[in-house]
Amino acid sequence: MNEEQVLKRIASEAKAGRPSLAGVHLGIGDDAALFAPRAGRQMILTCDWSLEKTHFLRDKHPADAVGWKSLARAVSDVAAMGGTPRCYLLSLALPASHTGRWLGEFLRGLRRASRAFRCELAGGDTTRRDEILINITVAGEIAPGQALRRTGARAGDLIFVSGRLGEADRGWEHLQKLRGRVRADDRLLRKHLYPEPRLTLGEWLAKKGLATAAMDLSDGLSIDLSRLCTASRVGALVDVASLPMLRDVARRKAVKLALHGGDDYELLFTVAPRKAHRIPKRFRGLQLTQIGRIMRGRKTEVRMEDGSVHRLQAGGWDPFRE
Amino acid sequence: MNEEQVLKRIASEAKAGRPSLAGVHLGIGDDAALFAPRAGRQMILTCDWSLEKTHFLRDKHPADAVGWKSLARAVSDVAAMGGTPRCYLLSLALPASHTGRWLGEFLRGLRRASRAFRCELAGGDTTRRDEILINITVAGEIAPGQALRRTGARAGDLIFVSGRLGEADRGWEHLQKLRGRVRADDRLLRKHLYPEPRLTLGEWLAKKGLATAAMDLSDGLSIDLSRLCTASRVGALVDVASLPMLRDVARRKAVKLALHGGDDYELLFTVAPRKAHRIPKRFRGLQLTQIGRIMRGRKTEVRMEDGSVHRLQAGGWDPFRE
Repeated sequence: MNEEQVLKRIASEAKAGRPSLAGVHLGIGDDAALFAPRAGRQMILTCDWSLEKTHFLRDKHPADAVGWKSLARAVSDVAAMGGTPRCYLLSLALPASHTGRWLGEFLRGLRRASRAFRCELAGGDTTRRDEILINITVAGEIAPGQALRRTGARAGDLIFVSGRLGEADRGWEHLQKLRGRVRADDRLLRKHLYPEPRLTLGEWLAKKGLATAAMDLSDGLSIDLSRLCTASRVGALVDVASLPMLRDVARRKAVKLALHGGDDYELLFTVAPRKAHRIPKRFRGLQLTQIGRIMRGRKTEVRMEDGSVHRLQAGGWDPFRE
Repeated sequence: MNEEQVLKRIASEAKAGRPSLAGVHLGIGDDAALFAPRAGRQMILTCDWSLEKTHFLRDKHPADAVGWKSLARAVSDVAAMGGTPRCYLLSLALPASHTGRWLGEFLRGLRRASRAFRCELAGGDTTRRDEILINITVAGEIAPGQALRRTGARAGDLIFVSGRLGEADRGWEHLQKLRGRVRADDRLLRKHLYPEPRLTLGEWLAKKGLATAAMDLSDGLSIDLSRLCTASRVGALVDVASLPMLRDVARRKAVKLALHGGDDYELLFTVAPRKAHRIPKRFRGLQLTQIGRIMRGRKTEVRMEDGSVHRLQAGGWDPFRE
């Protein structure tokens, strides 16, 4: 296969998966994509690496899941801003040996994600490489002034998370123990392989003006919460007893996974006390849990179940640290 | 250095280089960038890989040039559409050993390019990797209906190119013969290291409605012209005698470089005969040369200086072909 053929294949898969959104005027096949945001909307732009060995293993992860998750990770940043995804660019570097079946399955996963998130493939760049490298840029949009930022949390605000924490990381641990390519339908791997960006929740929080700050949990609560606190110049106290944890692992392990496990792509958001009653226990089936409070000062702390309070060490994933 | 520190460094370099454009509301430090296109404008989105070993050599190319060229290559796609760049996202994967001096020089080159092209750093993604991987997304804008596409060339149209062809590839050949890291001010390397996207020319062609089709020359005239012809469903005849070639190399070599040399980032565009008189010999100091004609049928051919006509074999760079 030459580059033209790889591009043709991507373009035809793209057409097959086209969610028929208006506004994307020109896709693959020209120098760049043309895209018309709705009148008066701000654009949201975000990009994410998905790299072999760093983010997935070529011989373990189903190519379909690599496709799904590559897009899901970038779309999750749009969800964290409260925006609506519109289109994406795919930068793909592949070994020549992977332009056949692997590419087909990868594109199928991307296409399913593209449909699910209503986010259309608009363009990209393709090259050959010994390792599989993926970079995805998502363009979304939002009404001016509605974007959920990391900077607005104030002392006294309540801290919430969606879903359950630690499930993706537990899946990753499970996967490492399996031999050969894993089954895409392994229940324990569901959240690790096919994370769901919390788009509907993000859009609702933004539209109703309910969150003072928000972000998505990609590197783990301990590291991401400290980022939100740094951006807002506040501290936080997290209550371990209130964390939505896994139930089918030892308690100690569940706490560790909930505090430090990455890749959940749940939303972390803060709400002013006077608006807290408007946050339901479940939003369209998705659990919402208050896990602590924003505090004066700059310390991020955690209250253990025995009542003792400790500094919340950022134990999440930092690629530049061994 | 941990990821937070790498991001901080990128953010502070970004601020130092900020060309103070309106509309980019939120940059590095949140989940995504917010960006307001001017009212009624279409967005242009494009992304480009710049990968160690594929696009540059870690121990040969000055990091400053890697930064400049990474942005220039992506901005060139916006120029090819006739658009105006607004902001960019930087995806960077680096070895821990390169977060010091190399990163500083790389960011300086990016900053100079960002100023020159009036294209602001708005966000990105950073991770650690044994190899240096770069992906840049540029968002630009254009008035609806003005974008220069590849699809509009018609039989009889005149084919033009800007600048001189083959200079970048000659620089690349020269660089491969040099030992150790090369000097950023080596005159023979100028176009290979610091290409100039033809933004002003592209904007002028688009605004005045002068070009029926356009693209930038990234992979070499032979491969890029055949792409334009495929998109427009036409053929072409290129006149070798008229090509703007290098003068200080053997003629045979100059022809080969002009037909097949990549990386020039000049514009290739077609003009209807009745508008051809409006294309000057020089546009703001940049040479514009008619190099052939669009033909009926689907053959891309070249007339040699002896009058013989041959099929123009795509000899440019295709990463999926050995």
